[in-house]
Amino acid sequence: MSVAGWVETVRDQKKVQFVVLRDESGAVQLVNPRTVNEDGTVAADEPALTVSGLSQGSFVRATGELKHDERVKLGGIEIKLSALDVETAAIPETPIAADSGIDKRMDWRFLDLREPKHNLIFRVQTTFENALRHYWVDNGFIEIHTPKLMASASESRAELFELPYFETTAYLAQSPQIFKQMAQAAGFGKVFEIGPAFRADPSFTSRHATEFTSVDTEISWIESHEDVMKVHEDLLVAGFTAVKEKHGAEIEALFGVEITVPTTPFPRIPLAEAKRIVAERGYEVPRHDDDMDPEGERQISAYVKETFGHEFVFLTDYAASIRPYYHMRHSEDRSITKSYDLIFNGVEISTGAQREHRVETIEQQAREKGLSVEELEDVLAFFRYGVPPHGGFGMGLARVLMLMLHLSNLRETTYLFRGPTRLTP
Amino acid sequence: MSVAGWVETVRDQKKVQFVVLRDESGAVQLVNPRTVNEDGTVAADEPALTVSGLSQGSFVRATGELKHDERVKLGGIEIKLSALDVETAAIPETPIAADSGIDKRMDWRFLDLREPKHNLIFRVQTTFENALRHYWVDNGFIEIHTPKLMASASESRAELFELPYFETTAYLAQSPQIFKQMAQAAGFGKVFEIGPAFRADPSFTSRHATEFTSVDTEISWIESHEDVMKVHEDLLVAGFTAVKEKHGAEIEALFGVEITVPTTPFPRIPLAEAKRIVAERGYEVPRHDDDMDPEGERQISAYVKETFGHEFVFLTDYAASIRPYYHMRHSEDRSITKSYDLIFNGVEISTGAQREHRVETIEQQAREKGLSVEELEDVLAFFRYGVPPHGGFGMGLARVLMLMLHLSNLRETTYLFRGPTRLTP
Repeated sequence: MSVAGWVETVRDQKKVQFVVLRDESGAVQLVNPRTVNEDGTVAADEPALTVSGLSQGSFVRATGELKHDERVKLGGIEIKLSALDVETAAIPETPIAADSGIDKRMDWRFLDLREPKHNLIFRVQTTFENALRHYWVDNGFIEIHTPKLMASASESRAELFELPYFETTAYLAQSPQIFKQMAQAAGFGKVFEIGPAFRADPSFTSRHATEFTSVDTEISWIESHEDVMKVHEDLLVAGFTAVKEKHGAEIEALFGVEITVPTTPFPRIPLAEAKRIVAERGYEVPRHDDDMDPEGERQISAYVKETFGHEFVFLTDYAASIRPYYHMRHSEDRSITKSYDLIFNGVEISTGAQREHRVETIEQQAREKGLSVEELEDVLAFFRYGVPPHGGFGMGLARVLMLMLHLSNLRETTYLFRGPTRLTP
Repeated sequence: MSVAGWVETVRDQKKVQFVVLRDESGAVQLVNPRTVNEDGTVAADEPALTVSGLSQGSFVRATGELKHDERVKLGGIEIKLSALDVETAAIPETPIAADSGIDKRMDWRFLDLREPKHNLIFRVQTTFENALRHYWVDNGFIEIHTPKLMASASESRAELFELPYFETTAYLAQSPQIFKQMAQAAGFGKVFEIGPAFRADPSFTSRHATEFTSVDTEISWIESHEDVMKVHEDLLVAGFTAVKEKHGAEIEALFGVEITVPTTPFPRIPLAEAKRIVAERGYEVPRHDDDMDPEGERQISAYVKETFGHEFVFLTDYAASIRPYYHMRHSEDRSITKSYDLIFNGVEISTGAQREHRVETIEQQAREKGLSVEELEDVLAFFRYGVPPHGGFGMGLARVLMLMLHLSNLRETTYLFRGPTRLTP
């Protein structure tokens, strides 16, 4: 048989040589018993010479006889080598080791990703996204690809990348928000997109990136943000079910994590109540506005885990003061919005809301926020021609994966991380 | 029953009112017989008053009794109105009409997309992409999201968007090329991505955009570009089969186009032979280099259609002089590359190739092209640690849809087109 992969380890012993060869699906051991000359020295023949010169990381094709050997790990299978061809020889120094720091590992990400654990993350990502798209397609959603180049900032001018664009200036989209809403005006009904979003965020936390993959959906004819939360939890159940089925055992083996498919409905707690609960646990959120903070999110998540045995919680009804102008407000109390954040294992992974679709109310809310209705005209134009009641959410893909696998940094779950000082590789 | 959608037409007659209501799935007629007073005038009651004030494009919810009426089109179904609620009233002027020019229609894209024909394009897109992803996932490909922000130009400095990035400068990715290749170095084996790509292309043709959706795949352990073409044609067969099954009848009704699922293998013609064939048809390609031109592509496509009854043709073995440095060359004739363009109904939709994976050869080919190996070092680094033989292709999604539906402009098949003078809506 013939196999191909990269060299993980070489043991070049006097009487027998071993090579562990790996590809994205697993590893196999190659074995080459050496020919011993009459004078007791080993013969300098092939493939022994090639094995002796192998550097770790080289890509090779190996041909030989398949053997079953009880003593061998790697599934008890090994191949007795008859020929070995080196496709590309790696340079012998390995710049990173298992204990290298994350920044060093990111420098050599193409080597770092050869780790079976790291490879698994992206197979999990594939399965997760595939399950989400199945749900969307089965339920009649339309896939859109919204532009990432915009003429104006859709929300705020903060953390915005700006670039010369022919005779004018363009901005990189911070989210597909406005274009998802436009699809509702266009009568698309229900839409989804998984694509990049950009934030010129100068922070260096483990949870922020300047470019990230955003999972977005938007639906028409909702009664409230409750309809958005229903779709949201159904999507997550679909994703977690598929991941558990396909990778559950491997995740447990490599990450020591048991994937739990969440039950629906997820717990829902209005933000004001969540703050009271957190205060009762002895944590006063040190903010002057009405928002939660990261420690508060961890606390409420711990409370939900203890009380309901659930890893997810929707915090609902955020104050209008800390939500964008386009979130719909409760008609009976205009100080709170029909919006939510979704917290997973202590960290916010998503914001969702019913959007205000009545243009007079949007204009009024924008003015209350001190925004210029004139500057928003590009955005407001399509509301003037009719938009059905609608809502949706955006969710950070790398955050979901990070929390699912109990990792502490989204650099681990981003293929090639981008931050204020990181544009390579 | 209750229905919701936008108002397509209103006929406000004296004795009876008709409203055609549409949503993304189709249309329904609402009918409201008016109450006639004893003096012969009609009563000013509800929902008659609301119907009289309806503007086209308004989003409404209607409640009433479902009726079957043979005289009614729209599937013979109508609803006898009992209540009508206007969710958002559209302003009465309709800025575009069926005969508006494409640029005007793009200005009002959110109205333009309400056309059933235009809506269908994006449902076809959804089905097409879904079929491609099914193929990839079923065949063990890993989905990656490559960064769109890069530290350096991966190919040439031409048509590159550049932006200030904290203390340095970033560039928008013209293709995921180098990152797909990096996935091969990382041992991912087979990868795919559907995502945005950016070209600062100042041209105003019907086939170019500054931002477009690129369909990309890359696979390890290939023998030649033939392996890439096999995956490519299998993907297209999967996509066309799904589109024909799900939307074939509707496409025929709205576009007058019968979707043909292509047979495999697609015809393959080396470029030099294609130029001879085109010359025999009386067309001399007016180029000084070894490339084809758009008219030549139409001619060879016509020849293939006449000779093989096929809408697709792979033009193979492009001269090294007109291919990038990273394309692998034939070992028996280093003046030609192991690459191809895929032509569909007369237009190029894709370029694919086996990539050169031996770093010394890459450096040599880069130098021959006058490129600085030092400037390419970021890109070359991962080849030094071993890469298996690999290849792949990139394909423009909007082009495929344009040619599939026999449209003449990719503005029609792009959700929100971006060009040198178009950044809105």
